[in-house]
Amino acid sequence: MKPLITLLTDFGIQDPYVAEMKAVILSICPDVNLVDITHQVGKFNIRMGAFTLATAAPNFPPLTIHLAVVDPGVGSNRRPIAIETNRSLYVGPDNGLLIPAATAEEIRHVYELTNTSLMRNPISSTFHGRDIFSPIAANLALGLQPREVGREITDYVELSFAQAKYEHREFVCEVLHIDEFGNIITNINQKELNKLTGHARVVVRINRKRFPARMVQTFSELRKGELGVLVGSHGFLEIISSQANAAHKLRVKIGDALRVGGA
Amino acid sequence: MKPLITLLTDFGIQDPYVAEMKAVILSICPDVNLVDITHQVGKFNIRMGAFTLATAAPNFPPLTIHLAVVDPGVGSNRRPIAIETNRSLYVGPDNGLLIPAATAEEIRHVYELTNTSLMRNPISSTFHGRDIFSPIAANLALGLQPREVGREITDYVELSFAQAKYEHREFVCEVLHIDEFGNIITNINQKELNKLTGHARVVVRINRKRFPARMVQTFSELRKGELGVLVGSHGFLEIISSQANAAHKLRVKIGDALRVGGA
Amino acid sequence: MKPLITLLTDFGIQDPYVAEMKAVILSICPDVNLVDITHQVGKFNIRMGAFTLATAAPNFPPLTIHLAVVDPGVGSNRRPIAIETNRSLYVGPDNGLLIPAATAEEIRHVYELTNTSLMRNPISSTFHGRDIFSPIAANLALGLQPREVGREITDYVELSFAQAKYEHREFVCEVLHIDEFGNIITNINQKELNKLTGHARVVVRINRKRFPARMVQTFSELRKGELGVLVGSHGFLEIISSQANAAHKLRVKIGDALRVGGA
Repeated sequence: MKPLITLLTDFGIQDPYVAEMKAVILSICPDVNLVDITHQVGKFNIRMGAFTLATAAPNFPPLTIHLAVVDPGVGSNRRPIAIETNRSLYVGPDNGLLIPAATAEEIRHVYELTNTSLMRNPISSTFHGRDIFSPIAANLALGLQPREVGREITDYVELSFAQAKYEHREFVCEVLHIDEFGNIITNINQKELNKLTGHARVVVRINRKRFPARMVQTFSELRKGELGVLVGSHGFLEIISSQANAAHKLRVKIGDALRVGGA
Repeated sequence: MKPLITLLTDFGIQDPYVAEMKAVILSICPDVNLVDITHQVGKFNIRMGAFTLATAAPNFPPLTIHLAVVDPGVGSNRRPIAIETNRSLYVGPDNGLLIPAATAEEIRHVYELTNTSLMRNPISSTFHGRDIFSPIAANLALGLQPREVGREITDYVELSFAQAKYEHREFVCEVLHIDEFGNIITNINQKELNKLTGHARVVVRINRKRFPARMVQTFSELRKGELGVLVGSHGFLEIISSQANAAHKLRVKIGDALRVGGA
Repeated sequence: MKPLITLLTDFGIQDPYVAEMKAVILSICPDVNLVDITHQVGKFNIRMGAFTLATAAPNFPPLTIHLAVVDPGVGSNRRPIAIETNRSLYVGPDNGLLIPAATAEEIRHVYELTNTSLMRNPISSTFHGRDIFSPIAANLALGLQPREVGREITDYVELSFAQAKYEHREFVCEVLHIDEFGNIITNINQKELNKLTGHARVVVRINRKRFPARMVQTFSELRKGELGVLVGSHGFLEIISSQANAAHKLRVKIGDALRVGGA
């Protein structure tokens, strides 16, 4: 079967950078399936990239190679790595970007990319996406054994998302992601939602402001513009509004702290 | 020959949603050609999606599968459907989105998607693009007979674009689409343009404002910034400006009413 | 091996135009690899398109077909052309767009596209991307000999980027490109940088304003927000800032004149 490489970056879609990466990959492994996850990760926003990668990756077939570059430390002593999990391979910078996705699949081995014979020569100091990560991913797509990319390490940079806590009858939680519709994805997992059983409404608190919201199963139960909460398609509680932008209403951004309790 | 699935949504290109749909498709049918039509349909703008799909679809080869999701009613009693035409297959919500494209190719059968064995399990209430439409499209790409997706229906939701009328020596028409260049695509079909024969200029009226425009064949006949009308690449009269944004000049938006008459 | 066609336009990603081009290509040559370089070239900005194409193209494998459309003169007497170089094929308008990329690979033959039997019929006056360039590119992907697309010409439109000059102890240069990060790519080639040897700092002059900047090898040597210069991944001197937008700081745009001298 044709190998599959996904790409996720904060490079945007205007510049030639993403095409240069694909060109390098196709020069090494012409018969590969390339799928963009996104190139619109907020510039240098490792957490937003990590969330997006961790959300998309489980849907891909086993043996997919995920190439991800959100890399404020490019050219520094930040190491380039590849991760072998029980299901997939990940290639990118050692800054936490790959970790939530890889951890969810169970990490087997993490390798520092030291095998320069697999990389472009010379290697620029500013574009490891093209010069290191793309050729490594392409070689893995050709069937290279992961252990051949470099030396195994265990002291890679960790990254995890905070868990919501339930205290004083409300969830103390944070905004994991805000999507283009303005849906606010919190870190409250659906497994914990029994704590809200019996409540038809909740109150969302941000700083001193209180926003009542109705507990629903679908957008269409809400009147246009009404605020609601539901379990979203990734298993997290989302604060939403029907055909309107909930994040604008609540004036929140990724990473903000929230409280959600039964009303 | 490799099956071809196109994708059109209002999901944007920042979030993981489109990649999740592609991942689901590739997990079922790895040897498929995926082509994005656009993911920048205005949020919840079914008519804009319908116009874009109807414009793009006729250019694709026969047997293409068009997967389209602009779906404000997701999770409600809005039905998921597939349409078999004389030329292609369409998969998406029963809200009119697929109808103009499918009608132009002549609709043979419309099926409500009821065969849950073809869908993801569980099905989220907010992301049928991933959980229903993508696996159905992927199964059709594998060669599944359309009638196996569910039960045939005839009471699907209709959608059609208004026809321009000619009365009192002018066209009473509307804005079908405004493209990124600011070209205003009207619903005046080139077949009706003989009504303007002999006129070298027209007047476009919007509310009480009048905009004179020159009838041309190409952009380059206009001085930079001059207003003109021509038959666009889809056979409709377009109001244009040379290297400038006609929609900004006329302050119109999609759906607005216009009048166009000989000057 | 599967043929490879890249696409570069100023059409944006909202309208059906790019999908229509891909649809036409896939109808003629179903087994082709399509790679987007970008569709976000500034509207009608031939120089920005030419820079982007020239930057991306050298990374692609030999025999790649580059289809590029930034075409303010569509429908005028502007000729459609194809270029055969020592490495690749280029298809697009005769307005300079293809020239920097093609020249870098050495131009063998330039053909005016006159073989209408290879084009769509009828040909619209406003969308040669779909009606002329795409079917020609698809036929070349099928193996058509380049000389069969039309008649050889030598009076094609030239385009080249100004060379930086070194005079009175500073480079007189210009802004070739500004990327989405705000990095300012100048036309100072790394081969000329020996003129700055021994300097740890430079001064960038724009009109009457002076901006001191540190000479570095990587972004990470700079404090957040500090201004620096380094040799970028394409071999040109770039004016950068760490995790900040240098172009905003200096208020420059593509094409602006700059002076850079040792401090």
